[in-house]
Amino acid sequence: MEAYIGSIGSKLQMLTTSDHASVVSMNLFVALLCGCIVIGHLLEENRWMNESITALIIGLCTGVIILLISGGKNSHLLVFSEDLFFIYLLPPIIFNAGFQVKKKQFFRNFITIMLFGAVGTLICCTIISLGAMQIFKRMYIGPIDIGDYLAIGAIFAATDSVCTLQVLNQDDTPLLYSLVFGEGVVNDATSVVLFNAIQSFDLTNINAVIAWEFIRNFFYLFLTSTLLGVFTGLLSAYIIKKLYFGRHSTDREVALMILMAYLSYMLAELFYLSGILTVFFCGIVMSHYTWHNVTESSRVTTKHAFATLSFVAEIFIFLYVGMDALDIEKWRFVSDSPGTSVAVSSILLGLVMVGRAAFVFPLSFLSNLAKKSPNDRIGFRQQFIIWWAGLMRGAVSMALAYNKFTSSGHTHLRGNAIMITSTITVVLFSTVVFGLMTKPLISILLPNPKHQSRSLSISSDPATPKSLTLPLLEEGQDSLDDLGGHEIARPSSIRALLTTPTHTVHHYWRKFDDAFMRPMFGGRGFVPFVPGSPTERSPPNQWH
Amino acid sequence: MEAYIGSIGSKLQMLTTSDHASVVSMNLFVALLCGCIVIGHLLEENRWMNESITALIIGLCTGVIILLISGGKNSHLLVFSEDLFFIYLLPPIIFNAGFQVKKKQFFRNFITIMLFGAVGTLICCTIISLGAMQIFKRMYIGPIDIGDYLAIGAIFAATDSVCTLQVLNQDDTPLLYSLVFGEGVVNDATSVVLFNAIQSFDLTNINAVIAWEFIRNFFYLFLTSTLLGVFTGLLSAYIIKKLYFGRHSTDREVALMILMAYLSYMLAELFYLSGILTVFFCGIVMSHYTWHNVTESSRVTTKHAFATLSFVAEIFIFLYVGMDALDIEKWRFVSDSPGTSVAVSSILLGLVMVGRAAFVFPLSFLSNLAKKSPNDRIGFRQQFIIWWAGLMRGAVSMALAYNKFTSSGHTHLRGNAIMITSTITVVLFSTVVFGLMTKPLISILLPNPKHQSRSLSISSDPATPKSLTLPLLEEGQDSLDDLGGHEIARPSSIRALLTTPTHTVHHYWRKFDDAFMRPMFGGRGFVPFVPGSPTERSPPNQWH
Repeated sequence: MEAYIGSIGSKLQMLTTSDHASVVSMNLFVALLCGCIVIGHLLEENRWMNESITALIIGLCTGVIILLISGGKNSHLLVFSEDLFFIYLLPPIIFNAGFQVKKKQFFRNFITIMLFGAVGTLICCTIISLGAMQIFKRMYIGPIDIGDYLAIGAIFAATDSVCTLQVLNQDDTPLLYSLVFGEGVVNDATSVVLFNAIQSFDLTNINAVIAWEFIRNFFYLFLTSTLLGVFTGLLSAYIIKKLYFGRHSTDREVALMILMAYLSYMLAELFYLSGILTVFFCGIVMSHYTWHNVTESSRVTTKHAFATLSFVAEIFIFLYVGMDALDIEKWRFVSDSPGTSVAVSSILLGLVMVGRAAFVFPLSFLSNLAKKSPNDRIGFRQQFIIWWAGLMRGAVSMALAYNKFTSSGHTHLRGNAIMITSTITVVLFSTVVFGLMTKPLISILLPNPKHQSRSLSISSDPATPKSLTLPLLEEGQDSLDDLGGHEIARPSSIRALLTTPTHTVHHYWRKFDDAFMRPMFGGRGFVPFVPGSPTERSPPNQWH
Repeated sequence: MEAYIGSIGSKLQMLTTSDHASVVSMNLFVALLCGCIVIGHLLEENRWMNESITALIIGLCTGVIILLISGGKNSHLLVFSEDLFFIYLLPPIIFNAGFQVKKKQFFRNFITIMLFGAVGTLICCTIISLGAMQIFKRMYIGPIDIGDYLAIGAIFAATDSVCTLQVLNQDDTPLLYSLVFGEGVVNDATSVVLFNAIQSFDLTNINAVIAWEFIRNFFYLFLTSTLLGVFTGLLSAYIIKKLYFGRHSTDREVALMILMAYLSYMLAELFYLSGILTVFFCGIVMSHYTWHNVTESSRVTTKHAFATLSFVAEIFIFLYVGMDALDIEKWRFVSDSPGTSVAVSSILLGLVMVGRAAFVFPLSFLSNLAKKSPNDRIGFRQQFIIWWAGLMRGAVSMALAYNKFTSSGHTHLRGNAIMITSTITVVLFSTVVFGLMTKPLISILLPNPKHQSRSLSISSDPATPKSLTLPLLEEGQDSLDDLGGHEIARPSSIRALLTTPTHTVHHYWRKFDDAFMRPMFGGRGFVPFVPGSPTERSPPNQWH
């Protein structure tokens, strides 16, 4: 990831060109963000749309308008920069994901998620690389070497599950949600690690030693990144528990939580680890310990502030991608041979679909073999939805493609320009076309539970689907604890450990958590009552 | 202000030089911010310290350490940039000030605040300019023209009341707080407008026409900026009231409020107005209307999120100023003649004290003449505190000085270097020495009410002084309404309007607000009960 934090100056490149033009751009961009939120709200009940597609389409429309006004010279307000994306926009999204995830479901399906996220991404990357190598060699595109092909594999192996998660519901389809969500996070991390490894390793002569080195490196990164995230989260819990005892200050607590979360991401970058994994596990630990050590006001504030940051960052990304898609410079190379570009995009899209099918169905089969209860198994319809949910390609693919095929946002080689435009095409097509079809598809494949509880949830709670997941945080707190006891009898032998490993691990984790971790770091039930709650501080009638 | 939004690329200039070094810098900076919060919390009960001084001292110490490690080459992590300050750090501080201010006190003292903030700053600027012109002409400093002298006046007329406001309490000394606070906001705006006017006007031949133009321009800016802020605030209230009726979403509401507040600032920049004034009045309108149209969760979240943003931005600024103070490049010019630098700094500090005294005491006298009730008058001790509270010079002065005397953070002229180092010296000296003396001074001058309620508030509410002001928002909501009725009988004639103008204006404002504004834009008591409160959504036992 280190490589992306290069020329952040280019982030606001438009600001250096002209002063007043930059202010106009920023105004327009902030106004468009507001517009996306309002329109997204109005279209909320719509069967097809969601916030991401709205932002993408508004971005495209704005791009067209700017293109027309500037006489075909310019289409975007800001130059797309991986730095802006990886330093400012991605961390809040991933942190919020970890902070709001239902830990019970996530850890119960931990092995399956890892299978999909790590092994699956490797399979997908290999298939796309090999397929592209075989097909593109026969087309005249430009000089593309083996490193480029592997990079293409990594770029198109990075899924974008934001769009799907806006449609899937954590309550109705907890298994599906946790699988798609968990896979998305692990997949992001895997793709980025893979991409960096491809950039840095000498790939001209691949042999067993290099392959072994590669795999060892991957697991080392995974483990250390997770540990760093857990460490930072525990540190924040410890600091707030020790220091703020009896003298709580909401502003300081909230500021410390935000800064420590961001620090975990930056520390991972410092040690050349995966910031995405680190900040994700930091979010999980913070919601399990730190969140219980602060005042009621701080809890409400952090819960919603993190969700809002993540929400704005998502809209920002889609608006940005939509606006950047029309950049005239990249399309100039392609306009000579539109057929080639369409062919390349279609081939890549096909490879994405094949590559994903090649691991979702076999790995689901493997995962089902290990499950005893039929309820825990992944049915064929669910497998299809998992396959479908990972077809969308988004900002991570864009950022990686820009990093590989451009130098500070500009490209002058034909082959590179075609790769960039193909990435844009695949991202736009998959997000808009596949994205539009997701809601109807899910309601066809999973008709009853989905539809019932969705209409129920809308009538009982006027919040959006996104906000619906928020109150779950409280329920999620004790999920780690309950898991050992409530369904399966306590295992008493080594055999039990072998047959129900996840549950046994959770049972011992729960004992360890209660005996050592919670007295040390705080958490639900282990912190004295903290005043400063909104219900306490002001008379009740003020809140009605 | 337009001029400041130039080369924002320089903001993260360090990032372009070396990739890994930049990550190290960002890590260190975030870690230092965390450290400042923790140390500030530990020193909270200390008689002398406050958060600003802590941040400044930590910044200085870090600067020394970096200077030693780098062998005297470098002392800061980031190059100080007016852009970063004016675009990202100042808006949240001023918006939060408007959002949390006690509107009752602010509007009651509106005329006095305007006297101090606008007329006083003009007097102060004139005295400093004339004094500097007379004294510096006799010293060998370098080529300084009349525009530079006027700029020096504007630079050193900009007070920094952040430090004082951390010590003054809105509950104990409401009059003093609102005067110091209101003056601070108006003073910031006046200084910036003044500075821009000096930069753009042809000042070689000043005559009555230019002076009249200048004054007209000032009032035009003031009025339009205020109106723009009020308009944006009302727009946000209207959108949220109309759109979110019955279908509230906390994330969207919070995101809209933050984005619209920022939009108001950027719009002001777009139209070459004063963003500071605009965002301040936007904050006032948002807390009066918009804040009442959202869910309970949104209210708690926005209240604390804005306060936290402002808090972090303040610490960031002081840390930044402290670290930048040791920049070796600027001190090189001064090292030849340390006597000159000390002399210039002392003279400027003296002029600041004289210039402030020259308007605080006469204007307080004028203001007292208009007041009938002795309680409303400003006593001599209070005048002394108002004088003292405005002696600190801070980030606004630094930003203006950098804008005037450097080009993108570097200076190569002796005169300019001396001005920069003198500004740094005055800022450091006034913030640390005067800042340290403020708490003891206030407890000597206002011994009884201050001390009693301070210890009381700590025992009854474990929040910090900053957070103590937060619950006041609710009380503040109805202050505009109550003002007309609760103390003074309703005026029934034109004579009453002349003798108690403020109260009469408020009485009619209240009628207008109830009859037209609130039904249109929402507000306390004019919005149906909004579900989604933390107390409603989850069972009560979850919150204990």
